[in-house]
Amino acid sequence: MRAVDLIQKKRRGGELSGDEIRHFVAGCVDGSIRDYQTAAWLMAICCQGMTFAETVELTRAMAESGASADPGELAAWAVDKHSTGGVGDKTTLVVAPLVAAAGVPVAKMSGRGLGFSGGTLDKLESIPGLRVDLSAAEFQRVLATAGLVISGQTAGLAPADAKLYALRDVTATVDCLPLIASSIMSKKIAGGARRMVLDVKVGSGAFMKTLDEAAALAQTMVAMGEHLDRQVVAVVSDMSQPLGRAVGNALEVQEALDTLRGDGPPDLWELSLTLGSYLLALAGVVSEPAAARSRLTALRDSGAALERFAAMVAAQRGDRRVVDEPALLPRAALVDSVASPHTGYVATIDAEVVGRAVAELGAGRAKKGDPIDHTVGVVLHARVGDRLAAGEPLLTIHARAADDWHRARDRLLSAYMWSETPAPQPPLVHRVLGA
Amino acid sequence: MRAVDLIQKKRRGGELSGDEIRHFVAGCVDGSIRDYQTAAWLMAICCQGMTFAETVELTRAMAESGASADPGELAAWAVDKHSTGGVGDKTTLVVAPLVAAAGVPVAKMSGRGLGFSGGTLDKLESIPGLRVDLSAAEFQRVLATAGLVISGQTAGLAPADAKLYALRDVTATVDCLPLIASSIMSKKIAGGARRMVLDVKVGSGAFMKTLDEAAALAQTMVAMGEHLDRQVVAVVSDMSQPLGRAVGNALEVQEALDTLRGDGPPDLWELSLTLGSYLLALAGVVSEPAAARSRLTALRDSGAALERFAAMVAAQRGDRRVVDEPALLPRAALVDSVASPHTGYVATIDAEVVGRAVAELGAGRAKKGDPIDHTVGVVLHARVGDRLAAGEPLLTIHARAADDWHRARDRLLSAYMWSETPAPQPPLVHRVLGA
Repeated sequence: MRAVDLIQKKRRGGELSGDEIRHFVAGCVDGSIRDYQTAAWLMAICCQGMTFAETVELTRAMAESGASADPGELAAWAVDKHSTGGVGDKTTLVVAPLVAAAGVPVAKMSGRGLGFSGGTLDKLESIPGLRVDLSAAEFQRVLATAGLVISGQTAGLAPADAKLYALRDVTATVDCLPLIASSIMSKKIAGGARRMVLDVKVGSGAFMKTLDEAAALAQTMVAMGEHLDRQVVAVVSDMSQPLGRAVGNALEVQEALDTLRGDGPPDLWELSLTLGSYLLALAGVVSEPAAARSRLTALRDSGAALERFAAMVAAQRGDRRVVDEPALLPRAALVDSVASPHTGYVATIDAEVVGRAVAELGAGRAKKGDPIDHTVGVVLHARVGDRLAAGEPLLTIHARAADDWHRARDRLLSAYMWSETPAPQPPLVHRVLGA
Repeated sequence: MRAVDLIQKKRRGGELSGDEIRHFVAGCVDGSIRDYQTAAWLMAICCQGMTFAETVELTRAMAESGASADPGELAAWAVDKHSTGGVGDKTTLVVAPLVAAAGVPVAKMSGRGLGFSGGTLDKLESIPGLRVDLSAAEFQRVLATAGLVISGQTAGLAPADAKLYALRDVTATVDCLPLIASSIMSKKIAGGARRMVLDVKVGSGAFMKTLDEAAALAQTMVAMGEHLDRQVVAVVSDMSQPLGRAVGNALEVQEALDTLRGDGPPDLWELSLTLGSYLLALAGVVSEPAAARSRLTALRDSGAALERFAAMVAAQRGDRRVVDEPALLPRAALVDSVASPHTGYVATIDAEVVGRAVAELGAGRAKKGDPIDHTVGVVLHARVGDRLAAGEPLLTIHARAADDWHRARDRLLSAYMWSETPAPQPPLVHRVLGA
C-alpha cells in the first residue's frame, strides 16, 4: 500500500477502507509516511469529505495509535464531559463538581487553549500549586479521593491525534467535520470514557459558525458513539456571545466558584444544569434529565458541590483556600472599567472578537507551548438584549499595562453592535441529540 | 502574510493575488514555508483549481525563482519544442535536426523519463560518450557549432519547479492543469525560449487521458504565451497507442536515425513533419506551415538532417559513427519475438501498459535518480488497424534475461485488444492551437 495511492484515492473522492485508513494513520505516527504526504491527505479529506464509515475507522485507528489507558475500576463507570471550545466557557468547572456531588464520579481529561478559545487546564492552573499533569496512577488516586479529577491527557494516548492536530493547525485543515469528530472521539475512547456529554458550541466564538454545521457534527458524534459502544449525548449550545461574564483564566475560575455558590451569571448556571442533568441521566442516577435539575440545585445550595471542587483542588495539590478566599487567585496590575459609548440595547457581542482581544492581553496563545498570563481578561457587565445608558459600565478590563488596556478596549468595543429597539436574546441551547 | 492563511484562501476557492503567489513560491524555495504546508497548498489547488490569472502568476513566480539563463545571441532566435511525455515519443530526435538543417537554430532543454514515460536525455545517452549535462557556455558552443543542442536543464534554473515537482510526485498532485501548465512554461521561460511548439499528448500513454483535458491544457499554454510575450503553438497529438514502433532508449535512437534516413514508421515521420512545419513557421522561414513540408522532406532526402544529428552528437562528445553504424549502439542480451496469438485486426494497444512493461524491463525508473538500462525495450510490428494472422510476429522484446522477457511478454500481450472486423485508426493529430 503506497501513501501516494491512498492520497490519490481520497483526492478522487473514493472511500478508503479500514485497512487503508489504519495504514495511513500508523505510517503517519511511525514516520514512514512523511508529513507532506499527511498534509496532502488531510487537505484532500477537507475538500472531498469522508463517509461516516471512514470517520468511524479514522477514529478507531487514532484511538488505537498509542497506549490504551487503563482507567481503573472507578473510572469505568465515571462520566465525561467535553466542549468543542468557546469563549468564557468555564462550564466544566461548575458541572464536574455538581455531578460528583451527586455521587457520580467524573474523570475528565481536558485541553489547553489555542487561538481565541480558552482551555480548562489553563484556567485551573490559576489556582496556586494545582497540578494538571497527573500520571495514570495519580489520576485514579484523585478520582478515588475527590470523586472528581480534571487533568491533561496522559502521555502516549492517541499520539496520532496529537500528530494530526499539529499538522492541521499549520495547513488550514482544522475546520473539517470528520477531522474534528475523529479528533474528539479518538481521545475520549483512548482515555476509556464510556458515557459522555458533548457540548457542541455554535456561533462566532466557536469553530462551528452555523447551526447546520454544529448539528451535523453533533449528529455524527452521537452516531459514532453507537458504533463504538459509547453512550453519547450532544448538546448544541450558543456561542454567538461569550458564556457568562468573565473571559480570562483566573477570572473564569472566580466566576465558576461564584456560580457554585449561587451567585453566578444565569446563562452559565442554566447551561451547567442542562449538561449536568444529561450526565446524571447517562449515569443512571435519574431516569429523566428533568428530574436531575432540582437535585443539582440542592447540591449547589447545600455547598456540597463547592466542597467537591475544594476536595479536587486539594487532591491535585492546589491551594484549597482559594475556594473561600478568591483574593488568593492572581490578579492583574491594571483593572479598570470601560463606559458604554451608547444608550440602547446590546444587539450582538461577537464572541470571537472578545476571545481574540483577551488572548492578545496575554490570556491565550498563538501557538502550542506559548506561555500565558492567568491574571488578564475581561468581565462583561451586559449581555445581548440588555439595555444600557451611555456612561454606564459596559465591561472591566484586567491588563498588565496601560498600552494593553487601551488596545483591548478598542478591540472589545468593536465586538458590540447596538440597537435602538429591544434586541432578541439568542437561545442558550439550540438542540440536544442522543438523549 | 502567513502561509496558513494563503492555504486557507485557496481551500475556500479564493483567487490568490500575484503577491500572495510570489510569497508562497519564494517561501517554498527558501524553506521558510515548510514542505507540509506546500503539500497542503498544492492539494488545495488540485481540488479548487486556479484561474488563468493565478496560473500566469504562478508560472512567472516559478520562472523567476532562480537564476535567469542568458541564452546568448544565437539562442535568442532559436526555437524550442516540448512534449508533455508519452510512450515511444522520440520525435525530438527527428524534428530537431530537420529544423536545424533548414537553418533555424534549435536550443532544447530536455528531461528524463519517469514512470511509464520516457525522456529524451535517457535516449540520447544510449549513444556512447554523449554528454547531456552541458554548462551554459557549452550549451551555446554546441548550438553555434551544430546549429542544434539538446541538453539537461541548467542547474539553478526555476528551482521552484524542481521543488514543487518532487513534492507533487509523492502527494498525488501531479495531474492538475494549472500545475502542469506552470511547470512546463516556467522552465521554458527561465531557459530563455521565445518561440516554441508544444506537443500535448492525449491518450492512455499520456498524463492527459481525454481530449477535453488535453485541449484545455494546450489552450491554457497558448494563452499564457500571449501574456508572457512568448510565441506558442500547441499540437494535441495522439498517445492512445505508442508512437512509432520502438519503445526503449537505444531502440528509439535507432528508429529516429532510420526515420531521418527515410526508413522510419509513417506516423513518426508525419508527426515530425507537422511539428517541424510549425517550428519553421514560428521562425519566419516559411509563411505557411504547409509550405514547410516539402522543404523538410527534401532535407531528409538529401541527408542534411542526418548530418545535423551527427554534428550534434560529435559536438556533445558522443560517438558520431553510430549515425552510420547502428550496431555501435548497445544491444540487449536476449532479443526474441512474440507471435500473434490471434488472427484479426488490432483494435487497441494500450500505450500506458506498453510503457510500464518497458520500464519494468529496466528502461524506465520508478523514482528520480534510479539507474536505467539503455538496451532493453520492445519493437511493435503492428499498429492499431493492422490485420495479423495467428503466428505472425507481433512484437520483439529486448531483455536482459529470460525471466524479464517472459514477464514483459505477458504484460505486453495484455495491452492488445483484437477485433474481427476492421478497426479504425485513431487520428495522429487531434487539434492545433495558436497557429
